[in-house]
Amino acid sequence: MDNFKVIEIKQSVFADNNREADRVRAELKKEHTFLLNLMSSPGSGKTTTLKATIARLKDKLRIGVMEADIDSDVDARAIAETGVKSIQLHTGGMCHLDAGMTEQGLKELGTADLDLAILENVGNLVCPAEFDTGAVKNVAILSVPEGHDKPLKYPLMFEVCQALIINKIDVLPYFDFDMDKVREFALKRNPNIEIFPISAKTGEGVDAWCAWLESQVEEWVRQD
Amino acid sequence: MDNFKVIEIKQSVFADNNREADRVRAELKKEHTFLLNLMSSPGSGKTTTLKATIARLKDKLRIGVMEADIDSDVDARAIAETGVKSIQLHTGGMCHLDAGMTEQGLKELGTADLDLAILENVGNLVCPAEFDTGAVKNVAILSVPEGHDKPLKYPLMFEVCQALIINKIDVLPYFDFDMDKVREFALKRNPNIEIFPISAKTGEGVDAWCAWLESQVEEWVRQD
Repeated sequence: MDNFKVIEIKQSVFADNNREADRVRAELKKEHTFLLNLMSSPGSGKTTTLKATIARLKDKLRIGVMEADIDSDVDARAIAETGVKSIQLHTGGMCHLDAGMTEQGLKELGTADLDLAILENVGNLVCPAEFDTGAVKNVAILSVPEGHDKPLKYPLMFEVCQALIINKIDVLPYFDFDMDKVREFALKRNPNIEIFPISAKTGEGVDAWCAWLESQVEEWVRQD
Repeated sequence: MDNFKVIEIKQSVFADNNREADRVRAELKKEHTFLLNLMSSPGSGKTTTLKATIARLKDKLRIGVMEADIDSDVDARAIAETGVKSIQLHTGGMCHLDAGMTEQGLKELGTADLDLAILENVGNLVCPAEFDTGAVKNVAILSVPEGHDKPLKYPLMFEVCQALIINKIDVLPYFDFDMDKVREFALKRNPNIEIFPISAKTGEGVDAWCAWLESQVEEWVRQD
């Protein structure tokens, strides 16, 4: 596959990550490229959600994906099958990406001809929330089997995200998951967070999420 | 509840975590106390597995539990309801526990009258694997909804554990989870890992896991 490659990213050399993140965002702004930082626990369905998202948006937006993982290339291969440009970032054991690491990925991906670049962060509900990657928006996925109490236990993740996808709603009947409570707990952490219950597997709710994402990209690309 | 308290643990001051971990283990050995370090992603069912484990072992072993969390005290409250001693360790945003932090918890818990102390680590499949806590054995939980590919993506966790619990087997019919593949991938990371498929919710498989844990405790407590 020529739309697929693996790169080993290096530890960042920037002392001030926030400044570096602002610089990355300013560069993206110049190129009219939106960067989405997608975060979640391992196994919440980030890659499946991305595949469903790409299927709906790839005729409207030029999309590229960076799949961050400690090891393996299974996710980038899965994304490459959708036909969009995809690269695998190996973090060498690191539990998160910062702005400098993200920038290495963006350079390999090439953003000049992209409307939407997506970073699938390392599966981890803790560390990635601590680092601004330079993304325009942060989105977290929480899946039904993980339980509705997660905003209580991992507060920062829900504070730094502008949207929360509740994935795997097709298995709601088999789990003690309270949708009202998860909304209450997430909004307590972040009163402005947008919440999208979806099943990436069946497609339920994915259109609403994609409409929101598309509107965010349009707003960023058109703004001066 | 007088078997329940919350403590804020401080960042460790020890430069050499491995040496500190060996010191913690030597202290536990003197007191004939076994320390289990239980790790997993958020929402894999660590607390539910512990409740099922305690129900089966509390008449045979004197058990105490440390629940590590960034915030909230829901887990320690749940454990306290089982009647065993339980403390909540707040990590102040930190994504893992090291030996020095674990020792602060052990002192608060009091181990002199315990056969089995259990540390429920922060929900995170990455960082906790990097730090020896002083535990006698490390055990990971992977739940069916997370997917069978996790040993490929998070190699270190599966390398440092002596046993792997595959939880939530009651929902196997609703997920594309391949039990043969997860065994193959986990054994590739660690040929000696013991694997226990269980449902902490229904109790299926829990006896086999508890028998293994009990045998490990017995061996540690009796050995000179």
